[in-house]
Amino acid sequence: MTIEERLAEMGLELPPARAWANSNRKGAVCSGNLLFVSGHTPTEFPEGYRIEGAVGASVSTTDARHAAQGCALAILRSIVDEIGSLDRVTRVVKLLGFVKSAPGFHDQFSVIDGASDVFAGLWGEAGVHARSAIGVFELPRGQCVEVEGVFEFR
Amino acid sequence: MTIEERLAEMGLELPPARAWANSNRKGAVCSGNLLFVSGHTPTEFPEGYRIEGAVGASVSTTDARHAAQGCALAILRSIVDEIGSLDRVTRVVKLLGFVKSAPGFHDQFSVIDGASDVFAGLWGEAGVHARSAIGVFELPRGQCVEVEGVFEFR
Amino acid sequence: MTIEERLAEMGLELPPARAWANSNRKGAVCSGNLLFVSGHTPTEFPEGYRIEGAVGASVSTTDARHAAQGCALAILRSIVDEIGSLDRVTRVVKLLGFVKSAPGFHDQFSVIDGASDVFAGLWGEAGVHARSAIGVFELPRGQCVEVEGVFEFR
Repeated sequence: MTIEERLAEMGLELPPARAWANSNRKGAVCSGNLLFVSGHTPTEFPEGYRIEGAVGASVSTTDARHAAQGCALAILRSIVDEIGSLDRVTRVVKLLGFVKSAPGFHDQFSVIDGASDVFAGLWGEAGVHARSAIGVFELPRGQCVEVEGVFEFR
Repeated sequence: MTIEERLAEMGLELPPARAWANSNRKGAVCSGNLLFVSGHTPTEFPEGYRIEGAVGASVSTTDARHAAQGCALAILRSIVDEIGSLDRVTRVVKLLGFVKSAPGFHDQFSVIDGASDVFAGLWGEAGVHARSAIGVFELPRGQCVEVEGVFEFR
Repeated sequence: MTIEERLAEMGLELPPARAWANSNRKGAVCSGNLLFVSGHTPTEFPEGYRIEGAVGASVSTTDARHAAQGCALAILRSIVDEIGSLDRVTRVVKLLGFVKSAPGFHDQFSVIDGASDVFAGLWGEAGVHARSAIGVFELPRGQCVEVEGVFEFR
């Protein structure tokens, strides 16, 4: 089974490809067999995953966890766009997740699990990664969560 | 002298090993000869290093610096768990330190020095690293400091 | 044309070299052909780029973008100090930019573009990078922006 088939089996799908023409940045950049992936929010999605607000106040942990799943899917899209196929990924190395947190919100782990579970679900042992989860004050476009990552590929 | 002997000479000791069974993440992941280490707070310690609150308000810089030392020790534990021995580390490459900061607190450097000094003390020249220190709004479990890192090993 | 000549053509210049003697950290560290660069604020500059305050409140997006350009120049200085010449850089891999944000400020992208534009301007296609832009609560020395990066070199 390919990774994209497994993704479909998990009931998930990639957002549409994104145009980065004439930009100073892009979704992912390779160096050697490491792929450094930009911070992704779920804003690429036509609907559903985009959530504005602070987690622990106007946004629930459950909803933010869903937004983090959207971040993971947006990351997967950038991986496909850069190296052609998710089947080339040999290891999910590291995630760094940022959660727009209300004062006193301390469960950043549960939010970023929404992204981590996608990767562990797709790649099993090779999807188990190092991770940091941080509570930040603001994120671009008011989004409640942003995730970046480092991947190994062949 | 081994690095663990030097650690003991500095009056420091590793926290107990941590179980990551059935988790989507772990303490550290290797790719090539780089080791990407998760963000660590001092919550693994039985006592003493764990400090909740914002630095510059309820937590002093001195106490937060001690907590950052605890982060460094927790990182060292994850390195041992992943590659077997601190003696395999050939370079401390990069740290990223997050300090839960009260409004107007600008001395994140002094806090993260609590971690940096452990690495520079253990490895000398090879322990001198690139670093970023950031003031964040909240951290998991209310902790006042979290540190992640990249290490090179043989 | 060398990269330093292109920098001059863009009307920009490097800040003075920085002494890191007897420090636990430095501006940049190599591992293999990757160069991990510390978080830089524009505080190395004799004048002009240093700006304290929160973007969206006392600091305008335009001024913060200029400060981010200063961060890029400070990063370039650390690259020169570590590997001797900007001409050895083969790829700008990844930037992580932190913007001290006032409540409700959501345009971290435009601020960090001040750094990204320097790299894309100097290296063209090879300067187009992965990136994350984050809104944080406080930064060292009260600065409004800090940028770190990963570069590939030969």
